[in-house]
Amino acid sequence: MCELFAMSASQPTDVGPYLSRLMPRGGRTGPHADGWGVAYYEGRAARVFKDSLPAANSRYLALLAKSRLKSTAVVAHIRKANPATTAPCAANTHPFEREWNGSSWIFAHNGKLPGLHDVARCPTSRFHPIGGTDSELAFCMLMDAIACEHNAISRLEPGDIVAAITPLVRELRALGEFNFILSNGEHLFVHAHTRLHSLEASRKETRAAYVLLATQPLTREGWRPLQPGAIRVYRSGVATA
Amino acid sequence: MCELFAMSASQPTDVGPYLSRLMPRGGRTGPHADGWGVAYYEGRAARVFKDSLPAANSRYLALLAKSRLKSTAVVAHIRKANPATTAPCAANTHPFEREWNGSSWIFAHNGKLPGLHDVARCPTSRFHPIGGTDSELAFCMLMDAIACEHNAISRLEPGDIVAAITPLVRELRALGEFNFILSNGEHLFVHAHTRLHSLEASRKETRAAYVLLATQPLTREGWRPLQPGAIRVYRSGVATA
Repeated sequence: MCELFAMSASQPTDVGPYLSRLMPRGGRTGPHADGWGVAYYEGRAARVFKDSLPAANSRYLALLAKSRLKSTAVVAHIRKANPATTAPCAANTHPFEREWNGSSWIFAHNGKLPGLHDVARCPTSRFHPIGGTDSELAFCMLMDAIACEHNAISRLEPGDIVAAITPLVRELRALGEFNFILSNGEHLFVHAHTRLHSLEASRKETRAAYVLLATQPLTREGWRPLQPGAIRVYRSGVATA
Repeated sequence: MCELFAMSASQPTDVGPYLSRLMPRGGRTGPHADGWGVAYYEGRAARVFKDSLPAANSRYLALLAKSRLKSTAVVAHIRKANPATTAPCAANTHPFEREWNGSSWIFAHNGKLPGLHDVARCPTSRFHPIGGTDSELAFCMLMDAIACEHNAISRLEPGDIVAAITPLVRELRALGEFNFILSNGEHLFVHAHTRLHSLEASRKETRAAYVLLATQPLTREGWRPLQPGAIRVYRSGVATA
């Protein structure tokens, strides 16, 4: 099991205070001591920081949380490995990244998908896992589903992406637990299956809107559990679908 | 213009002392102040650290250089942007990364390739630039050339990679200046065109061999200029081709 964290915002926003609250769960107040990662989007590119050591005492993550790095889209993860299958190492650390259609796509997963490696895959698929997690394999399958339906370079609407992945998401969540956050920098595609909370907020003084997502609430603000089921889409800090 | 640095080693090796010598050239003793990046391989996965701020006063790079992080393959870059075309930002910062065939591929370039964006590209190509640099476009074209010739998942010999990219490398270097380092974690594919030095060394006490590559020598050790022309391949710290 793991914990997810993400943000979509209308203005570049510093998530450092929330990362500081997520950190101790990575090995001190929580058991997710098998690595951490944070992806900050800058346009269509993502800067991804990750390490397979515990978040709770990471000097890198502490530096990041205090760096006032601002972004309109952030995806983060702290990991508790399944010791039977995948060791803590760079290849198994979320979030995962692939380029498609001139954007960096970022994915983080909370849950388990036992049996996923037995599901047949097309040998001509475009995206291949580097590590051994079910999470990265599921990500590659999602990206294959998108690339397979949309081969040309064109402006895709978020509904096109949701339509392309929905059948596969239904198939995969039947295997186990599939809470995930997928992003292309502009949109967050969010699937709540068993455990995911959101916090929608705005700052009147800057007319900024933002939404935060987390497996468990990180503050005493008004986090609400997301109802399981549909794939939600967030853009510029507000829900669009 | 920019500066390249890379290492291939038979045993996990700390390149921190060399990064410490590269750093000041990124805005203090040298003009390459438009970003920096370091990719450390861990098996087939790469951990990529990058920033579009000057290397010379980067707290992240200073932390990395002192972190004793060990790897058998490292690719690093400090950047001087071409202000007419590409601003300093995450999308334009080397090294660039793409997954292909279950490995992370990393690329860094020194030189300019004017006119590259006018060269026709196949609209069905697999890899697309996220940023605006000629370097990332050249990388995508190299990866397309590899993926186009080798579609199936199989164990590729380094000679297969060299054969796949050689015609394109000849075509691109005719446009300008094309010193580059490409890696899949196991091999470094190195093209010296105008300026690149190597330092081959071994540590008898550990029976470790390693080779370092840099645009300009970083120490007073016996760096030698690489003769321009062929694509060299290094594996486990020794030249294989």
